Amino acid sequence: MNNKLLVVGTMAYDTIETVFDKVERILGGSATYIALASSKLKTNCGIVSVIGNDFISTDFQIFQNLNIDISGVEKVVDGKTFFWSGRYHDDMNSRTTLETQLNVLETFRPKVPETFRNSDIVIIGNLHPEVQLSVLSQMKKRPKFIILDTMNFWMDNCRESLDKVIAKVDLITINDEEARQLSGEHSLVKAAKKIHKMGVKYVIIKKGEHGTLFFGEGKTFVFPAFPIEQVIDPTGAGDSFAGGISGVLINSAEINFETIKKGIVYGSVLASFTVEQFGVNLLLKVTEDQLNNRIEQFRKLTSFEWNENNKTL
Amino acid sequence: MNNKLLVVGTMAYDTIETVFDKVERILGGSATYIALASSKLKTNCGIVSVIGNDFISTDFQIFQNLNIDISGVEKVVDGKTFFWSGRYHDDMNSRTTLETQLNVLETFRPKVPETFRNSDIVIIGNLHPEVQLSVLSQMKKRPKFIILDTMNFWMDNCRESLDKVIAKVDLITINDEEARQLSGEHSLVKAAKKIHKMGVKYVIIKKGEHGTLFFGEGKTFVFPAFPIEQVIDPTGAGDSFAGGISGVLINSAEINFETIKKGIVYGSVLASFTVEQFGVNLLLKVTEDQLNNRIEQFRKLTSFEWNENNKTL
Repeated sequence: MNNKLLVVGTMAYDTIETVFDKVERILGGSATYIALASSKLKTNCGIVSVIGNDFISTDFQIFQNLNIDISGVEKVVDGKTFFWSGRYHDDMNSRTTLETQLNVLETFRPKVPETFRNSDIVIIGNLHPEVQLSVLSQMKKRPKFIILDTMNFWMDNCRESLDKVIAKVDLITINDEEARQLSGEHSLVKAAKKIHKMGVKYVIIKKGEHGTLFFGEGKTFVFPAFPIEQVIDPTGAGDSFAGGISGVLINSAEINFETIKKGIVYGSVLASFTVEQFGVNLLLKVTEDQLNNRIEQFRKLTSFEWNENNKTL
Repeated sequence: MNNKLLVVGTMAYDTIETVFDKVERILGGSATYIALASSKLKTNCGIVSVIGNDFISTDFQIFQNLNIDISGVEKVVDGKTFFWSGRYHDDMNSRTTLETQLNVLETFRPKVPETFRNSDIVIIGNLHPEVQLSVLSQMKKRPKFIILDTMNFWMDNCRESLDKVIAKVDLITINDEEARQLSGEHSLVKAAKKIHKMGVKYVIIKKGEHGTLFFGEGKTFVFPAFPIEQVIDPTGAGDSFAGGISGVLINSAEINFETIKKGIVYGSVLASFTVEQFGVNLLLKVTEDQLNNRIEQFRKLTSFEWNENNKTL
């Protein structure tokens, strides 16, 4: 297919400590994980992001090898790439940020290349809401579908702009605590209802190892996370998940509750591979067969029989 | 069917505070919830428990109306019924125990009536492990299936006896934190493997609002909780769940991974009703049609399509 997917987000170097190991300055960032994940479905995908003069050419090569269009990645010659360093706690669910160097991200004003301005789907990773708005305003026509990721930092600091972006998108993915903060409701079912009222048709609430809740068209889909024996590095799980969703949707004739459900299944599988190694390593290596096998495993893990006979036990 | 189910556990009065309301001295206890939940499947069920002189006759009536055999409930005429008082925090997931009066439970030495000693399935709710062992030693022959519930308190205080009980049962239900404590493993997949090695074939890990992980026969089943708009009182959810499982199994010709899965589905549905009102109120009222409807809703909530066409998107 020739539908165009535009991915907007960060490209970063991450230094990550876990109970198992420490890795220094590995390739990361929301745009990175989203684009690499969506590329598993052979999407026609371009990135709008920003990097500094320290960005390694072999890391560029990774995207080029996958035919991901990086002509929209601005290189700031006198700046450094966004850097994040964090330590995951023993439970692998929570983490402490040790250092954040915004670097070139601080003054990033995304310029969407002419060739991407008619993209069919736009997925905007976690960024300043004003930057997210600026991307949307550069589109020639309203994209067929817009996916938004955000986080609590923007709810605390730029709520007004954030509300503006939310009202402009079709699908928002946030985690459970963020959904509670955004809505003021503890019940996630109620939270989703309030978020719908903010103008977004589809709401995906990510619960990490506990899976996903998806609300839209008056329907609900509940999907567990794949039970992983050993999570090595949770970084990028949420973005791999979102990338999988966008990859499925860009390849779907229609976008509706059912096709987004497929996206959630595929995204969950991609995320389950991402967390089994540091950085993008396993995401890059995983084959179509491995992905399809895990989808089948997912079905076995979650499906149950309950027929008429059972009803009258 | 005439298979006999023996339920051993507490009968209690609970005083419960939540953000919504406070209720005083309502009927509770593990045996209560287990027996009432399993009775939804018209089981031939008897309770072994203990009460004091303050137990209200209309509460007895509840069990009698459902043909639950309470001849094994010992009444201590100079004692008071076990009493628990707690306050749920705003998140409804955590709670503070305000008061525990063991009362008649302190000296409880269960006597299994002759008519229950050949029960086909025994389900033992949270009790002192020595008390749990004593019940098993009174059975005439090894029951077809034994289900055990326990909690962190016994892991801290009676680990040796607890290990003895665990090695004697077929299925254990514990929550995620307890599974971690029991096994010393953070990963729940690894935790289940270690618990299997303690001598128990089937392990169910309860994650409250995040659902259930079930391990056995080298297979895994992952099942979410039903998304409830407003949880009113989580008390008894785990016991209603276990009661549902035992109710399904007592009515199954065979007990294996697949039939336990059905039990989990049914138990999850029962638990989802229990938490929507205080105490046993809704559990008592819910009809077969309402249960079956929610099972169908569960299927819609969790099932997904992923066919050959999707594989080659």
